[in-house]
Amino acid sequence: MLNLGIIGATGYVGAEIVRLLALRDDVKITTVVSNSFVGQPFSSVYPSLRGIYDKVCDKLDIDVVAQKADFFITALPHGVSTTVIPGLLEKGKRVIDHSGDFRFRDIKTYEKWYKVTHGAPELIDKAVYGLPELYRDEIKTASLVADPGCYPTCSVMGIAPALKNKVVSHQDIVINAVSGVSGAGRKSDLPYAFCETDENFKAYGVANHRHTPEIEQELSLLCGEPVMVSFTPHLAPMKRGMLATCYLNLINQELSPADIHSIYEDYYKGEPFVRILPLGQLPETKYVAGSNYIDIGIAVDTRMNKLIVVSALDNLGKGSASQAIQALNIMAGIDETKGLLSPGLYL
Amino acid sequence: MLNLGIIGATGYVGAEIVRLLALRDDVKITTVVSNSFVGQPFSSVYPSLRGIYDKVCDKLDIDVVAQKADFFITALPHGVSTTVIPGLLEKGKRVIDHSGDFRFRDIKTYEKWYKVTHGAPELIDKAVYGLPELYRDEIKTASLVADPGCYPTCSVMGIAPALKNKVVSHQDIVINAVSGVSGAGRKSDLPYAFCETDENFKAYGVANHRHTPEIEQELSLLCGEPVMVSFTPHLAPMKRGMLATCYLNLINQELSPADIHSIYEDYYKGEPFVRILPLGQLPETKYVAGSNYIDIGIAVDTRMNKLIVVSALDNLGKGSASQAIQALNIMAGIDETKGLLSPGLYL
Amino acid sequence: MLNLGIIGATGYVGAEIVRLLALRDDVKITTVVSNSFVGQPFSSVYPSLRGIYDKVCDKLDIDVVAQKADFFITALPHGVSTTVIPGLLEKGKRVIDHSGDFRFRDIKTYEKWYKVTHGAPELIDKAVYGLPELYRDEIKTASLVADPGCYPTCSVMGIAPALKNKVVSHQDIVINAVSGVSGAGRKSDLPYAFCETDENFKAYGVANHRHTPEIEQELSLLCGEPVMVSFTPHLAPMKRGMLATCYLNLINQELSPADIHSIYEDYYKGEPFVRILPLGQLPETKYVAGSNYIDIGIAVDTRMNKLIVVSALDNLGKGSASQAIQALNIMAGIDETKGLLSPGLYL
Amino acid sequence: MLNLGIIGATGYVGAEIVRLLALRDDVKITTVVSNSFVGQPFSSVYPSLRGIYDKVCDKLDIDVVAQKADFFITALPHGVSTTVIPGLLEKGKRVIDHSGDFRFRDIKTYEKWYKVTHGAPELIDKAVYGLPELYRDEIKTASLVADPGCYPTCSVMGIAPALKNKVVSHQDIVINAVSGVSGAGRKSDLPYAFCETDENFKAYGVANHRHTPEIEQELSLLCGEPVMVSFTPHLAPMKRGMLATCYLNLINQELSPADIHSIYEDYYKGEPFVRILPLGQLPETKYVAGSNYIDIGIAVDTRMNKLIVVSALDNLGKGSASQAIQALNIMAGIDETKGLLSPGLYL
Repeated sequence: MLNLGIIGATGYVGAEIVRLLALRDDVKITTVVSNSFVGQPFSSVYPSLRGIYDKVCDKLDIDVVAQKADFFITALPHGVSTTVIPGLLEKGKRVIDHSGDFRFRDIKTYEKWYKVTHGAPELIDKAVYGLPELYRDEIKTASLVADPGCYPTCSVMGIAPALKNKVVSHQDIVINAVSGVSGAGRKSDLPYAFCETDENFKAYGVANHRHTPEIEQELSLLCGEPVMVSFTPHLAPMKRGMLATCYLNLINQELSPADIHSIYEDYYKGEPFVRILPLGQLPETKYVAGSNYIDIGIAVDTRMNKLIVVSALDNLGKGSASQAIQALNIMAGIDETKGLLSPGLYL
Repeated sequence: MLNLGIIGATGYVGAEIVRLLALRDDVKITTVVSNSFVGQPFSSVYPSLRGIYDKVCDKLDIDVVAQKADFFITALPHGVSTTVIPGLLEKGKRVIDHSGDFRFRDIKTYEKWYKVTHGAPELIDKAVYGLPELYRDEIKTASLVADPGCYPTCSVMGIAPALKNKVVSHQDIVINAVSGVSGAGRKSDLPYAFCETDENFKAYGVANHRHTPEIEQELSLLCGEPVMVSFTPHLAPMKRGMLATCYLNLINQELSPADIHSIYEDYYKGEPFVRILPLGQLPETKYVAGSNYIDIGIAVDTRMNKLIVVSALDNLGKGSASQAIQALNIMAGIDETKGLLSPGLYL
Repeated sequence: MLNLGIIGATGYVGAEIVRLLALRDDVKITTVVSNSFVGQPFSSVYPSLRGIYDKVCDKLDIDVVAQKADFFITALPHGVSTTVIPGLLEKGKRVIDHSGDFRFRDIKTYEKWYKVTHGAPELIDKAVYGLPELYRDEIKTASLVADPGCYPTCSVMGIAPALKNKVVSHQDIVINAVSGVSGAGRKSDLPYAFCETDENFKAYGVANHRHTPEIEQELSLLCGEPVMVSFTPHLAPMKRGMLATCYLNLINQELSPADIHSIYEDYYKGEPFVRILPLGQLPETKYVAGSNYIDIGIAVDTRMNKLIVVSALDNLGKGSASQAIQALNIMAGIDETKGLLSPGLYL
Repeated sequence: MLNLGIIGATGYVGAEIVRLLALRDDVKITTVVSNSFVGQPFSSVYPSLRGIYDKVCDKLDIDVVAQKADFFITALPHGVSTTVIPGLLEKGKRVIDHSGDFRFRDIKTYEKWYKVTHGAPELIDKAVYGLPELYRDEIKTASLVADPGCYPTCSVMGIAPALKNKVVSHQDIVINAVSGVSGAGRKSDLPYAFCETDENFKAYGVANHRHTPEIEQELSLLCGEPVMVSFTPHLAPMKRGMLATCYLNLINQELSPADIHSIYEDYYKGEPFVRILPLGQLPETKYVAGSNYIDIGIAVDTRMNKLIVVSALDNLGKGSASQAIQALNIMAGIDETKGLLSPGLYL
């Protein structure tokens, strides 16, 4: 039995992790730590879990909490993770962190985009970027895994096969992406109030969203050249779901759409959570909502000599919570797909 | 391994059954029968199931289909079920039917409200009303189970404890209920188009909805008196979810709210899918969406001498698909909760 | 030119009033007073009004503000209105107040349900209940009009014709009503966050909502007997719209549905904002969203001997903002329908 | 009094035109022609208009219908418009057509993208592209105006100032756009059913949407060079609203963001329906929903040397119905803003 603690458990990512693990017979969530709900049953915060996960929320006391589990998932704001994780690692715990704190190899990039001083720079080298499709082996033995951002997961996985295989240029990449509202977390800020958000669509973080350098880091590593992207996130009036439309310049003009499609299929061959759609079909967020799948479709715009890649995932699934569980499975030597194969909620 | 066929599989109820069973290791869906999608993979109709359930849809040929499974779930329109089910039963199959055709003990009531002549009256006596909390023993050995309607499940389960225990009068019961749009099925009718439904709320079927006599039948059986109810369904702009607000006249004025609450808890003691909320709390559809749970809360209006019962379920869960699976588990001697304990999707 | 000030202007009711009046050539909004946005242009708070109403928000200084207008609409929380309005009236201003503070004839009822001590009891007798269809003449000359609550407007107008004409009993009235989320105001409370509200349906304020005594007061005045109602409000995942389903016991059994329908048509004959739907049709909130209309439909449940009345309005329209403007028109001697005849937004 | 007929009146564009004109005192809708609802009151098709516009729908008999009005708006499918409009023009009527039939100067482009043979090629030269901000003078005297598509209006107006002023290159333009569901028209097709659309986001028409050549035509005319664009439309779960995010390559690097912003303000100086947002602000669809405004915001991505333009309109407003009325006002010599200045519906 794997004992797991979740720190920052009462946010949406934490709640989704609890939802996904509550019925597992090989994982036990032994502590849920929350700032705001100490002493309250988790199921009073999320009544959908009544009778399923009723444990009372613990306060954040590393010494106490660390004794309760061997693995920890931290779903804390950036800047806070660095104050909590060193203590856990010192006690020999293995940690998956969902903040931006340990996703960057270059601390300067992090500090520039996040506008903070990094609180635990010595851990940067230990951290593994938790995208199993790219770093599976490193995750197996890692003590600290940085759960990737939702936009980077969606974008990088959509672009990787074409970029890695020199189908497209690493220059002038445009990523236009859309997220459901849960991506903003469980916030009571006015801009996320129902009446402000419903029946509305908007762009945000134009030219300055923090997921930009994360995307660029991974794409650069993939192609061996420094990559910059034009990335624009948008907010759609739905709870879950993320869709990225990526505009890439074809450099190999001899490849037919079918050839490129084969490259995509080959690249992800054997990957249990990546579904390359048949040519002519494109993903929709409802195909993956509630699941750990990422669906990817491609189209070639021959007039413009561009490859259009559309990728879809659930920002609370492959974009955060279930991807963290995928990493947890790998770290713990459990079958990577355990508890994660459920289909999306078409409805 | 239990072999199951689903007839009328490509509607929303059928698709939800496939979603819930696709990963079970003790049940195999050996045939999905569809009028409209013969020869097409089920996952092309519901792409969320790509790679999870790709079997091709069969046409409805009873002789062929019957050879493929021992159990069948039929999710067909009323009037059609009666043309299909006799053939299945003759071949020794056990059937769960989701239409209204076999829910009524009195054929005249059925024919009056459904405005058709019943096509298989000889089977009425064999059919068991598939509400496990009321008919668990009969379901175990039944060859034909009538999966209850969503409104009746939601209303009857909310009212049963108070009515059975003579807390409230069987007279002048008002049931005001609300359904998500999936309750109408997978239809392309204009009234269910997004632009007609979104941001809209309406009543429908006032004083003549077909679930009325089904509710009355079960309440009458519970209290031993003929019960009539004033039942008004409404449509809310959401995909899943059902909530019934029941107005009942208190007859035993010595009972405190806490007493009545205890009666509710006792009535459903040990029931794995019924959650009686603490006094002071009321259910919301999001607590149960995507699950087989029904949540029930009560409030006493002392000024009006009324008991207000609010019950919530997922019309595609306990209101149809997962309730059918609960019956299937019981019929097959499998643990009744197998595959059904997942919490609702708070998000 | 009528000069109008709005105090509490940046809430949803205030913003709707500005939207409706901004283009009027006979009314000028000379001051918008806001606690939270002093010094900011109104159109920065509601960018839909950019270029249309850009005036800067004033702070609440009665002496200063009172000099700017002859009429005031106050959209303040209850308990706050009583601190502001006496000063305005002393200066000879005419006021329409949207709080609950001046809706009650019996101060004890107010204090019991609102759990506060009334701050200006001497004004109770001066206040006119601002439902033009019932109190048009009194509104004409009133110095203080209490804009009715949304639920009371919807319910009382639906029940009035039948109750006043002794078609139904004044006893055992059940009102089941549903509101869009804007009814809660422009709040950033977590329960009204998009992810908490979307795809969800719930009851609230069961047996204790403050609109209950307001409904009872007006129904009692209509029928001359003390009326109590069982009133349950619900929240639907939509921005605007309100629908009440009222269950009334028929006492005059000689009346056919057509007779009752005629009584409804006669009762509201000549009323510009009341639309009695043809027998067989029922209102939907989309018919009235964005408008000042209230649509009313009736159905008779002969089995239960009940009259079911369904009434729909926009909680920001006839339920608050545009009804206040209707009263303003009347008070100012302007054509009552001025600026208010626009149809609902079907889409 | 201007007499207007609407042919194809019961679609969403037609209904919005009726909504906007019904209360005008200078325009009378003398006939509403509908294929599907001949003989039925318009307000039975759109009950929001009950008591406001109850005229009965006429059948399409050009000889009869033409006698009823001097101006016509046709909201018909492409290919159908060409069969109706010649007859109207012959009788001296002036026509605004909302199909794609008369938007193209090059008939071959039309025939290639629309995959039909043009039915009235002799009228191409007479047709004026009905974007008042670009063709106001031509519209004044036109007998045939082609109401622009929603995506072209949104994109072209967003890009025009930068392209016309050589701020950006005419090459490698990427337009990523999102529409509300009403853009698909009043259809009962399954993909637009509530349960299929709600909580979902998807791309469609990738690399082959018919609005692509319309955008390219207008951009080419603006800059005097043949322009090709990479255009990808998406569907968001909302009724109204359109937002285009345009990625443009800066060619004049001496211009600061403030300079570019000034160029935008100058370009649209005096335009009553174009609102350039202050630097640092970006439009949201709710700012313009229900109105004839288009809001435009810009951001400069200095790292990528790109100008990001975000423009928002209501696909049923400036994207179709109210833009047609703007053209009608111009053609008829009425104040261009008559009846169109209402703000968007923030809620």
